[in-house]
Amino acid sequence: MKRFYHWPLDPIGRTARLVLAEKRLAFETVETRPWAVHPDMDRFGPGAAPPVFLETTGEGRIVLLGSHALLEYLESAYPTPRLLPASHQDTAEARRLWRWCEDSFKLVNDNLLAERITQWVRRDRQPDSGALRKGAHALRGRLTFLNALAETRSYIAGRHLTLADFSVAAHLSSLDYFGDLDWDTVPDLRAWYARMKSRPSFRDVLADRIEGTRPSGHYADLDF
Amino acid sequence: MKRFYHWPLDPIGRTARLVLAEKRLAFETVETRPWAVHPDMDRFGPGAAPPVFLETTGEGRIVLLGSHALLEYLESAYPTPRLLPASHQDTAEARRLWRWCEDSFKLVNDNLLAERITQWVRRDRQPDSGALRKGAHALRGRLTFLNALAETRSYIAGRHLTLADFSVAAHLSSLDYFGDLDWDTVPDLRAWYARMKSRPSFRDVLADRIEGTRPSGHYADLDF
Repeated sequence: MKRFYHWPLDPIGRTARLVLAEKRLAFETVETRPWAVHPDMDRFGPGAAPPVFLETTGEGRIVLLGSHALLEYLESAYPTPRLLPASHQDTAEARRLWRWCEDSFKLVNDNLLAERITQWVRRDRQPDSGALRKGAHALRGRLTFLNALAETRSYIAGRHLTLADFSVAAHLSSLDYFGDLDWDTVPDLRAWYARMKSRPSFRDVLADRIEGTRPSGHYADLDF
Repeated sequence: MKRFYHWPLDPIGRTARLVLAEKRLAFETVETRPWAVHPDMDRFGPGAAPPVFLETTGEGRIVLLGSHALLEYLESAYPTPRLLPASHQDTAEARRLWRWCEDSFKLVNDNLLAERITQWVRRDRQPDSGALRKGAHALRGRLTFLNALAETRSYIAGRHLTLADFSVAAHLSSLDYFGDLDWDTVPDLRAWYARMKSRPSFRDVLADRIEGTRPSGHYADLDF
């Protein structure tokens, strides 16, 4: 049994869903909400918060908390297809950029994405334009860096499709849902993202619809 | 050949030094400074910053950037002694708390530790008491959580000595250098830290002296 607690627009949850789909692993979904603590969290130990992945195996029940523990576990327990390459150097670059993505998009998500979500939950509230500006400014810097990688590499970490690609694609997809990506300014990144979007593993993420919201016009469009 | 670029008081660099010492791996040291870019960084690719570990192996040169890539590499290339346990669940808990430590001490280090370093570099400057207070407040919360773990577990992640222990011990050691830890309030964590400090791998870190500073009286004292 595999069960995944996540909120559909959470970039970390999306990274895991993409990786689970690449590895063709079926799982039950329990949808959580970012502004409410799910009652099951208490059972998973101190400081537990979604996304949480549970699996019952011959070894007993495994609780995976945090993207680092979860994705490294999936890679080690389900190595087909490999998303960390065979060479130490290629794997090091994939881990570096996967971690870079999570760390550096935090500022974007805490401002821009969090503000979009707050606007959706509390419609009567004025948008915080300072947070939106701060998030948008941080996002431009990250997109420039990623576009420079996409210009010279087939994939984010080099010649291989890795966890870094799924981390970056997941983060961009959440922002793209709200129409916050100006793709015209980053043509190489756009071409890379079009390839990522076309993978069968992306279908589930592109089908996400949050009640009361409509994704940007090109969100699920493979030829955007 | 193994070479490590690091600044002695950097908690991430210290984590790696402890792990290298546990695995009895000898390496050359290049000391970097947190306020100046080392000229070699350019050669290591876009966004490279210390700590950086270089190794020349049969596979060619490997450049390890970031603690995630570096420590996972060391664990996979030099598995003796194991610092990620054999069971998936124990390893997941070690990775979760290792990652928690780096993420949650960032607020402490960006305020308290950074302020101590700035005071040392620019002696003419008034200390920023707001940053010190913010860092000290964040530190108290983390210490309470860690003490609760130490109360019920032999090691941070459970029954085994893991990367989580070295990450936490390294972070505490940098703060302890400046006397910023009130050990009386966290007796169980103190007992755990006394055990960690007594390990031969800790000797090098306890011998660190930054020119123009003196560590707190009990810094290198094994029976503090």
